[in-house]
Amino acid sequence: MIADFSMKPNFPWEDKPAGSDALLWRYSKNPIIKRDQAKAANSIFNSAVVQYKNGFAGVFRVDDTNRRMNIRSGFSDDGINWKISDEPIRFINETDDLIESEYKYDPRVVFIDDRYWITWCNGYHGPTIGIGYTYDFKSFYQIENAFVPFNRNGVLFPRKINGKFCMLNRPSDNGHTPFGDIFFSESPDMVYWGKHRFVMSPGYSPWQSLKIGAGPCPIETSEGWLIIYHGVLLSCNGYVYSFGAALTDLEKPWKVIKRSSSYLLSPQQLYECVGDVQNVVFPVAALNEKESGRIAIYYGCADTVVGLCFGYVEQILEWLKHNN
Amino acid sequence: MIADFSMKPNFPWEDKPAGSDALLWRYSKNPIIKRDQAKAANSIFNSAVVQYKNGFAGVFRVDDTNRRMNIRSGFSDDGINWKISDEPIRFINETDDLIESEYKYDPRVVFIDDRYWITWCNGYHGPTIGIGYTYDFKSFYQIENAFVPFNRNGVLFPRKINGKFCMLNRPSDNGHTPFGDIFFSESPDMVYWGKHRFVMSPGYSPWQSLKIGAGPCPIETSEGWLIIYHGVLLSCNGYVYSFGAALTDLEKPWKVIKRSSSYLLSPQQLYECVGDVQNVVFPVAALNEKESGRIAIYYGCADTVVGLCFGYVEQILEWLKHNN
Amino acid sequence: MIADFSMKPNFPWEDKPAGSDALLWRYSKNPIIKRDQAKAANSIFNSAVVQYKNGFAGVFRVDDTNRRMNIRSGFSDDGINWKISDEPIRFINETDDLIESEYKYDPRVVFIDDRYWITWCNGYHGPTIGIGYTYDFKSFYQIENAFVPFNRNGVLFPRKINGKFCMLNRPSDNGHTPFGDIFFSESPDMVYWGKHRFVMSPGYSPWQSLKIGAGPCPIETSEGWLIIYHGVLLSCNGYVYSFGAALTDLEKPWKVIKRSSSYLLSPQQLYECVGDVQNVVFPVAALNEKESGRIAIYYGCADTVVGLCFGYVEQILEWLKHNN
Amino acid sequence: MIADFSMKPNFPWEDKPAGSDALLWRYSKNPIIKRDQAKAANSIFNSAVVQYKNGFAGVFRVDDTNRRMNIRSGFSDDGINWKISDEPIRFINETDDLIESEYKYDPRVVFIDDRYWITWCNGYHGPTIGIGYTYDFKSFYQIENAFVPFNRNGVLFPRKINGKFCMLNRPSDNGHTPFGDIFFSESPDMVYWGKHRFVMSPGYSPWQSLKIGAGPCPIETSEGWLIIYHGVLLSCNGYVYSFGAALTDLEKPWKVIKRSSSYLLSPQQLYECVGDVQNVVFPVAALNEKESGRIAIYYGCADTVVGLCFGYVEQILEWLKHNN
Amino acid sequence: MIADFSMKPNFPWEDKPAGSDALLWRYSKNPIIKRDQAKAANSIFNSAVVQYKNGFAGVFRVDDTNRRMNIRSGFSDDGINWKISDEPIRFINETDDLIESEYKYDPRVVFIDDRYWITWCNGYHGPTIGIGYTYDFKSFYQIENAFVPFNRNGVLFPRKINGKFCMLNRPSDNGHTPFGDIFFSESPDMVYWGKHRFVMSPGYSPWQSLKIGAGPCPIETSEGWLIIYHGVLLSCNGYVYSFGAALTDLEKPWKVIKRSSSYLLSPQQLYECVGDVQNVVFPVAALNEKESGRIAIYYGCADTVVGLCFGYVEQILEWLKHNN
Amino acid sequence: MIADFSMKPNFPWEDKPAGSDALLWRYSKNPIIKRDQAKAANSIFNSAVVQYKNGFAGVFRVDDTNRRMNIRSGFSDDGINWKISDEPIRFINETDDLIESEYKYDPRVVFIDDRYWITWCNGYHGPTIGIGYTYDFKSFYQIENAFVPFNRNGVLFPRKINGKFCMLNRPSDNGHTPFGDIFFSESPDMVYWGKHRFVMSPGYSPWQSLKIGAGPCPIETSEGWLIIYHGVLLSCNGYVYSFGAALTDLEKPWKVIKRSSSYLLSPQQLYECVGDVQNVVFPVAALNEKESGRIAIYYGCADTVVGLCFGYVEQILEWLKHNN
Repeated sequence: MIADFSMKPNFPWEDKPAGSDALLWRYSKNPIIKRDQAKAANSIFNSAVVQYKNGFAGVFRVDDTNRRMNIRSGFSDDGINWKISDEPIRFINETDDLIESEYKYDPRVVFIDDRYWITWCNGYHGPTIGIGYTYDFKSFYQIENAFVPFNRNGVLFPRKINGKFCMLNRPSDNGHTPFGDIFFSESPDMVYWGKHRFVMSPGYSPWQSLKIGAGPCPIETSEGWLIIYHGVLLSCNGYVYSFGAALTDLEKPWKVIKRSSSYLLSPQQLYECVGDVQNVVFPVAALNEKESGRIAIYYGCADTVVGLCFGYVEQILEWLKHNN
Repeated sequence: MIADFSMKPNFPWEDKPAGSDALLWRYSKNPIIKRDQAKAANSIFNSAVVQYKNGFAGVFRVDDTNRRMNIRSGFSDDGINWKISDEPIRFINETDDLIESEYKYDPRVVFIDDRYWITWCNGYHGPTIGIGYTYDFKSFYQIENAFVPFNRNGVLFPRKINGKFCMLNRPSDNGHTPFGDIFFSESPDMVYWGKHRFVMSPGYSPWQSLKIGAGPCPIETSEGWLIIYHGVLLSCNGYVYSFGAALTDLEKPWKVIKRSSSYLLSPQQLYECVGDVQNVVFPVAALNEKESGRIAIYYGCADTVVGLCFGYVEQILEWLKHNN
Repeated sequence: MIADFSMKPNFPWEDKPAGSDALLWRYSKNPIIKRDQAKAANSIFNSAVVQYKNGFAGVFRVDDTNRRMNIRSGFSDDGINWKISDEPIRFINETDDLIESEYKYDPRVVFIDDRYWITWCNGYHGPTIGIGYTYDFKSFYQIENAFVPFNRNGVLFPRKINGKFCMLNRPSDNGHTPFGDIFFSESPDMVYWGKHRFVMSPGYSPWQSLKIGAGPCPIETSEGWLIIYHGVLLSCNGYVYSFGAALTDLEKPWKVIKRSSSYLLSPQQLYECVGDVQNVVFPVAALNEKESGRIAIYYGCADTVVGLCFGYVEQILEWLKHNN
Repeated sequence: MIADFSMKPNFPWEDKPAGSDALLWRYSKNPIIKRDQAKAANSIFNSAVVQYKNGFAGVFRVDDTNRRMNIRSGFSDDGINWKISDEPIRFINETDDLIESEYKYDPRVVFIDDRYWITWCNGYHGPTIGIGYTYDFKSFYQIENAFVPFNRNGVLFPRKINGKFCMLNRPSDNGHTPFGDIFFSESPDMVYWGKHRFVMSPGYSPWQSLKIGAGPCPIETSEGWLIIYHGVLLSCNGYVYSFGAALTDLEKPWKVIKRSSSYLLSPQQLYECVGDVQNVVFPVAALNEKESGRIAIYYGCADTVVGLCFGYVEQILEWLKHNN
Repeated sequence: MIADFSMKPNFPWEDKPAGSDALLWRYSKNPIIKRDQAKAANSIFNSAVVQYKNGFAGVFRVDDTNRRMNIRSGFSDDGINWKISDEPIRFINETDDLIESEYKYDPRVVFIDDRYWITWCNGYHGPTIGIGYTYDFKSFYQIENAFVPFNRNGVLFPRKINGKFCMLNRPSDNGHTPFGDIFFSESPDMVYWGKHRFVMSPGYSPWQSLKIGAGPCPIETSEGWLIIYHGVLLSCNGYVYSFGAALTDLEKPWKVIKRSSSYLLSPQQLYECVGDVQNVVFPVAALNEKESGRIAIYYGCADTVVGLCFGYVEQILEWLKHNN
Repeated sequence: MIADFSMKPNFPWEDKPAGSDALLWRYSKNPIIKRDQAKAANSIFNSAVVQYKNGFAGVFRVDDTNRRMNIRSGFSDDGINWKISDEPIRFINETDDLIESEYKYDPRVVFIDDRYWITWCNGYHGPTIGIGYTYDFKSFYQIENAFVPFNRNGVLFPRKINGKFCMLNRPSDNGHTPFGDIFFSESPDMVYWGKHRFVMSPGYSPWQSLKIGAGPCPIETSEGWLIIYHGVLLSCNGYVYSFGAALTDLEKPWKVIKRSSSYLLSPQQLYECVGDVQNVVFPVAALNEKESGRIAIYYGCADTVVGLCFGYVEQILEWLKHNN
């Protein structure tokens, strides 16, 4: 059973700085996770956390000093101070035909029904969406990849819709993909996927003009699914990753109701602008306290460290009405 | 019921020219279909034909004089002289949520169980695999796309394997894709697809060094699935499309047993070298007379016309043993 | 004084082949000008002809055996058999500050008021639109370039509109420009140009999806300016140049009334598909017999030779109503 | 009437640091304008300022949090502390045929005769040079674009030369243009432009080897026009923007007399190296106190903020004699 | 001992066609070697022949039906009708440390002192210059590669100069190299190479504007070394290979005395324009009858077949005086 | 005579910080050389130092404020505080045929037999390996380039092997080379080079997946040659340069015994991440105290300044056993 988030004393939080009119504000002690805070780590960044028991658990992207991409588990009491494993997760492979996983990165985690589902970008003759699950963040099970390559940013909805598992995903190519729409796919069983629907394209405003991809698992609200997603602008000196939000239909989640033309956050702090990849803020997980509406967003910074920022769901929804 | 191919008097055929030691030989009156043989046609090329009733039916790629890509039906008594429709096929759309089809091209047709299934490259926010069926080549029904973009060369196996529909396919990008592996996917119902397996990569020999893609529907033989596929070499003046063959496991059709290092056919005739796209032979359909082992391969020539060539399955299998 | 075209016995012409339903039909003895028909010529192709005295005169793109691009004058009695000069045109330079012309290509010629104006792609630190004039095709005068680089396909309207000289042109880059809209610019004096207006973009249908550019000088009709223009499709083996037509407003010639989605002609003959640049038909001049409505279009073939095709203006206008 | 700059007490200035032998020195409190110092601003950078009444006025590039590029007005008493408008400038459009302006960026401002002329990079089916004017920095009027696309860095001379308005400009392409010469064009009326002349190319020394473009409006000196211009070097990690100077002929301003082989300033400070686009110093305006020869250059830093640096015209001219 | 070429009755030859003023004229029965004239050959093209005993021997580029590039030996009585081996040459490897040869192509052959030296483009972690020799065209010996990759078109001079072996060569990259200068290198022993000198660059005239490379072994004349070389022009549809000539200093063979601005031959015949690579004439060997001055040039056509053309050395030298 | 390094009091050194388990640790006062520490210097970075007399001498890459690349000499008593020349080294040219040197960069220095040999990337119609020598760091002599272009990172072994000079080198192209293997070449006399052997490729682990190149001169150990080399990873925002180590055979130094899959150092400090080229650590020289095993590595930082880090040879060798 998943615990109730409401009014938890240990929800990671910091009030908005006095005088600020920002919709999202950064944690004052960012980055919360340093690049070398786990053994043999080159960097720890695009990582997913969820509430777990009385505290928090997560799946972390940890590139090692080979710069091999992999994911590790971690635990925290307060969502801010994390103990991350010294080793990548070793999945028990449940596919019929044991298939390779050349690398793993950019995990998302979501609790559906009875377990925590994990999706990630999985290397199988190109990047595609790997799927696994855990009950306890100790034993992990890997099942079939959702798609043929090339796909990234596979993000599950936090419940079945019309009896089907649902996933946002981003068709890609095999390199630093200079394009990218968000799609929606569904599955009766987490193995076979179909009824793919186009959701939205880049190009709506400049910060998201090159490509876009889903971030944290969608947040259900009375007005629709709140989708926080990253967008990329191509400058003459490379990609700039910012993030914004969209609202989609509860029943047909590929139908976009609102979409932000402004970004919610863009890389402006030194730890967001300088690192292994400059100018990246990349949202991956959002803790959401239902009653208060507080939201804490974990985002990768410069592909090097993890940052945290805060806001209110209600304010984002309100802003979306005027910003699209 | 699908008719019996064996020893049909109207099987399209021409004996091997005296003195030739070729494994495949071209029809002497190639191209069998001219570029403007249907109304408003710019070109008629990568096209699929099957036996139908006492004759033959097919689905033809016909680019019109807008150079819009679409598919049309056609009929023939002898497999050589074809009457092709003046209009693109209008599919009755059976998807839940009527989805667009911006263009259609490179169809394949195969009879499974009770109907003729058609797959093609379908434009839905990028190329993916469209699926439809017909019982009579008059009424056509379109169901869900198999995959999110970008995919091309979706080719069904002619029967279910272990109770599942099976498809070869080629993950791509959204342009003139300069890479491409062949994958295998399966489906319980032609709607949801999964258990994707890598089959083979380009690079085995130079004619297939840039990318590869399945051609006609696989031919079942006692030794395995005979897969005729195209391969592309990148010269300083563009792509050169040739074709070869592979043999895969009957039960696990993604396991390659043999693969040709030589090509079976490369563009050498003027109608293969000159046209809307130079230097292309692109196999799409193979009529196969089981008892005699005769095979007639329909292939697109220079993205402009349709050619026909002949051979024997047995000889190709034998050749595969020594050519890999 | 410019002669009256109507019902000239020497108008170059051949009736439509019996049974053809083509809108344009090729001259049966194409190409009319061979690649080496002038001294030291590697190729003679994108060339402009006009009626002159009792016959015809023209300005020809002749690349020499250095493959240097330049233009030469030529004369003909029948518009089909041409005598082309052994030397490039030597312009008398009338610019204030003698400016270089590194190369010249793709000329257009049009009679306005009292003289024949010539525009071409002129090499001045990149391609731009060079302008000159002649009264007799013997003495030629060069004035200022119309624009800063990079521009190509500068095509004058055959009369002033609202008291201004008018020119279609195609902003470009400094290479094999993979994009290109048609623009409109005007000038009080052929020296200073302004009031630039966007006319149309590529992308309307696939044959014109990469770039477009004006061809012959616009033809005035009661319904608007008939603009024959080339369009380019990018295949995996390079550019394919076809041509179509549009109709624009007589007073505001940048306003498009109709535009063809089909092409009028695409490269299909061996001399259009094989040559220094494969798969090119590039229209440059159109003789137009007002009373009969006959039109004879001169077009470059494969960047190597000159072809000729025929049609009726009235039929093209009619077709435009149904083909857009 | 434009005020006299000489010996103004509020000329923005800071003396050269003791011990420095630099030709230009940065303001010690750079950046003078922060990225978020105006409402909804993502960044404020490449901006033009002039003396106005007893203080200063300017036109500022302010990209909003959509990352849409636009320009706003602003005022300052001391040239250092600026109040920038919360909204983009709304121009009264004076073109015959109301034309769009998809975006505006990189403005320059100069007083000629009776008003302040503004030029900027204007989005009209690609970047070109937009032109407008104001008398009071409150009401702004937009006239015709100077050129067809693609052009950037249109910079007016501060007076007519031989009775014509004169403009430096930089032909471009429609992306992050990896090339670029400076050209000169003139106009009798600010509407029609012609007599285009090549001024100079990149390649003179490595810091300016990829492309160059004019910066502030040219400064008239007894020895010629002093032109401060940016140059770009392509490193393996992108573009690096520095700036230098040239001197051109007073009567034929396209004739280069001297050109710096060293840069005057290159990105070395953290606010120049880190931001939305790394490693950019981009000069846009220069206040010039005639009698003292003091010069204050406003330059964009990292496409994010505005910096200020100081020097003496006389010393730059002297340096140009030895540095080319 | 190498035989005397002068006045040999079997020198391959055909007189210039009446009325022609060409400097080189093609053999009327071109191509002399068909693409499939040897076993398992896809194509036979860029090939080197020399006089041998009473007839001729050669080393032929034969790409097999894998499109693997390799070289084979062949013999002829008349230089026109060739018997080419069914197998690639198997070299006896004389390097200290047996090194791989992943592929071989574009051989040249020349007799120096006591044996026939063969150079070719050799695949050793990229293309470089392989070196071998034979006395009898039956046994072949391979020694060290001359250079590290990437290099192509290594062409030996027919005698030592100042006691050193000398080679022209063309530094390259690892793909379809879009650039290329000719260099000169020398060696005391065919193993160690140095004293590298730049000879000439592309860009002299458009047919040779992208890259150039040496063709047949230089021909010694009283006026210098006559070097026949290919040049490449990049059209929007790919590379066009033509060839021309240069004359260099006898003692310092890297010093260019004359260089042709026109080409000697460009691809104009169907067998030169259509094939595996369109628009290629690529000269590889020249038989030269000293007394008569007759020269017979063997050249690859469209990377598919071998052509032959004829001329006189004296006339080429004379032409060089006026064509540069 | 080269001095004995062992136990020198002035060996540049700082002990490992307490608590660190790093294999290499940075000098606490990095960077040791500032970008503008020599006259007219834009940056001082990839530089080579050796022990000389009682102190140290070096050859420094100093790019001037033109951003021209050149090398200068320098001296130091302690290896940390350097006096660098105000002028580039002027070599006395000893080649037969005075050849140009358009630029010089990335020098290495090594003492062999009787003198200090210097190699660098030398501009001679593209980058290649220049060679020179000095006895006293005052007079410098330049001999022939080792190779034809394109080559970089030519690094000599510190003694002859089997009587030959030996050099690692990295074949390249003429731009920001997106590939690169390390090769080995040998020479009897420093003029003629041959017997080229492939050493290793990029791709062994992600930090070195794009290209690799030798760093300091190999260090002889009882187990083989210790080779410290840089490797490049291509992120979406450019190249990231890290460095690692390999061990090769003493007699056949192209045979790799061990190779690190982790990096030894990657750009993580601000002075390594921000500068003219972001994210670069580039090792060029290593002082090695034989008895203690202490090693001090000089490396370029962000192509802007010089950093220093420390370690023990023995520990690196030990680590190599477990890290490959």
